[in-house]
Amino acid sequence: MPERAIGVFDSGVGGLTVFKELMRLLPEEDLVYLGDTARVPYGTKSADTVRRYSLEAASFLVSQGIKALVVACNTASSVALPTLQEHFDIPVIGVIEPGARRAVELTRCGMIGVIGTEGTVKSGAYTRAIQAVAPELQIASAACPLFVPLAEEGWANHEVARLTAREYLAPLVAQGIDALVLGCTHYPLLKSTLTGVLGREVLLVDSAEETANCVVQKLESGDMLRSAPGGARRFFVTDVPTRFERVGGAFLGASLENVTQVAID
Amino acid sequence: MPERAIGVFDSGVGGLTVFKELMRLLPEEDLVYLGDTARVPYGTKSADTVRRYSLEAASFLVSQGIKALVVACNTASSVALPTLQEHFDIPVIGVIEPGARRAVELTRCGMIGVIGTEGTVKSGAYTRAIQAVAPELQIASAACPLFVPLAEEGWANHEVARLTAREYLAPLVAQGIDALVLGCTHYPLLKSTLTGVLGREVLLVDSAEETANCVVQKLESGDMLRSAPGGARRFFVTDVPTRFERVGGAFLGASLENVTQVAID
Repeated sequence: MPERAIGVFDSGVGGLTVFKELMRLLPEEDLVYLGDTARVPYGTKSADTVRRYSLEAASFLVSQGIKALVVACNTASSVALPTLQEHFDIPVIGVIEPGARRAVELTRCGMIGVIGTEGTVKSGAYTRAIQAVAPELQIASAACPLFVPLAEEGWANHEVARLTAREYLAPLVAQGIDALVLGCTHYPLLKSTLTGVLGREVLLVDSAEETANCVVQKLESGDMLRSAPGGARRFFVTDVPTRFERVGGAFLGASLENVTQVAID
Repeated sequence: MPERAIGVFDSGVGGLTVFKELMRLLPEEDLVYLGDTARVPYGTKSADTVRRYSLEAASFLVSQGIKALVVACNTASSVALPTLQEHFDIPVIGVIEPGARRAVELTRCGMIGVIGTEGTVKSGAYTRAIQAVAPELQIASAACPLFVPLAEEGWANHEVARLTAREYLAPLVAQGIDALVLGCTHYPLLKSTLTGVLGREVLLVDSAEETANCVVQKLESGDMLRSAPGGARRFFVTDVPTRFERVGGAFLGASLENVTQVAID
């Protein structure tokens, strides 16, 4: 069991930011990624549809023989995590709880901002996760639907992104947040734009980093880390790989190779 | 046969701009719409995937008993029209040819601009359609991936849209276009922003209008217009209707009712 790979899935390329952190923290682990690029994005779709797609994606990775599943997609984590945890008998780790816990540690004034897709924000998953740990804290959230296409267009540091961020974040700034959860795996690419708009006093919580830390702890405590050296990386997508390979490089911070198309529906 | 409905399909809400023109020109016809909202967008997906999804969407509408099928999606028209025309024995009308013909009529300098999704531009469908009519004309095209999310966000006339349009259109302006094909059914919402950037000398071709005109001609010439008064409108979507109803109103220019969710995959 410890010699098996860790599975990571996302609706598209965004989860590669989590994959990148896992590569950094666990270089000897085998990693296998699935991007459901034929049906991306999940963020504007209903909870029922996202649950159905997530089950199909997770089933594919489980069929590859994995020891743990990372749901590297905030929308899927928000609405499908309990379903996936019930359905599979390996550890299933989402991105919400790690980010929420970190935000609780960081805030001083008690007002936390959360940004994400329409689906994530509407689910209220971050609010529940934060208030489960610290019920006295307040949360101001905003859906930022244009951030994903901006990041995928390579415009994360473009004037258009800055203007868009100013508009989306204005209500959160007005409410006096001092920590902001990047509740979408695409958003780490926008970090410098967000800091430019918010100032350095507002601390950003990168859920990709926090989730990777959480995976390490879980594997360590379960005695599930590899003993023999590994480090293989495999990538699967549900549409042809061309766009994934081109756009994904910026998310992975490395060039993408060995990408295979599979049917999961 | 003439008493049957006209079927219209799109990946999401964009095709409602075509539906709206059909309602205006053919108020007595029954119309049935399908938006494949569980798998939207098609514009960033591969030709093979778009063909597969288009066949499923068209089969659903044909099963509803329609006399003609309008492919109100530029991406699907670009890559799936011949497949659909082979597969079904009713008239199948796409949005590419009507827009291309109108652009040929409008240009004076012989340099036509075409904007659309990544899938539409990459397919070269407009270039082929324009040069089939007028091989001497030149075409400058640009993919504008951010226009769809901007229109769906309700930001079509926002400063962010203006800045984005300036960036996308700069190479077309530099090449001296005097007509611009709006090669995506979302783009009619951006008309005033585009005119603001391009000036009034550059004429915009609204493929929604041109396609509706083409449908009227086709039904007239085939003696397929209704004789008895009708005018029923039905809407189907593949995800829950909430977002479609909310966002779609701006595209239809009226509030959306009677929207039913169906499974087509």
